[in-house]
Amino acid sequence: MSYKVEIGISNKHLHLSQEDLEKLFGAGHELTPVKDLKQPGQFASEEKVDVVGHKGTLKGLRVLGPVRPETQVELAMTDARAIGIDAPIRESGVLDGTPGIKLLGPGGEIDIEKGVIIALRHIHLSEAQAKDADVVDKELVDVKTTGSRPVIFEDVLIRAGNKYEREMHLDTDEANAAGVKNDDLAEIIKK
Amino acid sequence: MSYKVEIGISNKHLHLSQEDLEKLFGAGHELTPVKDLKQPGQFASEEKVDVVGHKGTLKGLRVLGPVRPETQVELAMTDARAIGIDAPIRESGVLDGTPGIKLLGPGGEIDIEKGVIIALRHIHLSEAQAKDADVVDKELVDVKTTGSRPVIFEDVLIRAGNKYEREMHLDTDEANAAGVKNDDLAEIIKK
Repeated sequence: MSYKVEIGISNKHLHLSQEDLEKLFGAGHELTPVKDLKQPGQFASEEKVDVVGHKGTLKGLRVLGPVRPETQVELAMTDARAIGIDAPIRESGVLDGTPGIKLLGPGGEIDIEKGVIIALRHIHLSEAQAKDADVVDKELVDVKTTGSRPVIFEDVLIRAGNKYEREMHLDTDEANAAGVKNDDLAEIIKK
Repeated sequence: MSYKVEIGISNKHLHLSQEDLEKLFGAGHELTPVKDLKQPGQFASEEKVDVVGHKGTLKGLRVLGPVRPETQVELAMTDARAIGIDAPIRESGVLDGTPGIKLLGPGGEIDIEKGVIIALRHIHLSEAQAKDADVVDKELVDVKTTGSRPVIFEDVLIRAGNKYEREMHLDTDEANAAGVKNDDLAEIIKK
């Protein structure tokens, strides 16, 4: 089996609940989309938030939209260590037991009780693409990159379904360790 | 073949020539060792230097000793991007064509003309250890990690010789991408 996917590098970012968005940006505030992302319906917004750890602050993290049921901060391990937070590697949305943190917006600040994660690397595929690749949702695969310093990432999570479009999400540590750029191709080499 | 090596994570650091050391710390200055490193004769020194790029400054990079013929700054790609420098992946000591940068010490500042690299990942082995592992100096091998998110690093350079001691050097991006800590074991799986 050989199936190639485009790499999309996730810089540190966050998702906000409508409630937290209003606490940070003011009552009734709505996200202002500035750029569509590859995943259908997802967008980068104009809004930015500072993330304050006990060892430092990550300034101006981009809020991705639309708003979600729960606020979630996604950092690379390098980012997390820089501000002194011990964030676990988690699938998006699986937030029980994850640490909280202080968020600072132009209209206010909040202390979230949980939600800081290092995103588990994963590949989004539509149902048709998953069929072509001969994989199913939640399967783990090994993926070979061909950047300036090649790496095989083991145990990459497949997220297949019709709300997705083909894209392998790596964080900045993973992308830099492999020497890959956005839209470089990676290959599923083993199930 | 199966041979295991301990991982040593290289945080951003630099090596200085005696001439540059004196420009940064004062005439006649000598490095003050604070901790021996695993590689024989190598040590972390008390001295620290700021590395100034056009997009930012990395403060307090540790100088490793002893002094070398040429000054060399070793960054992870995340560090290099943070200060706006496009550093190539290079074997230590191979500095032709690498970018320079401004260094700031307590006794002065200098603009080096070359020497900023992202270190090529590598494994140090003594001659006896290389024989046990059935590898030779300059060979490239694939290495499997078993951290919280397993990775196979391809094309890892073997540096074998009696001035070395067994240790796999990864930078912080690579270590974070694999979820490994210092002294975790990695396994040479393919030559």
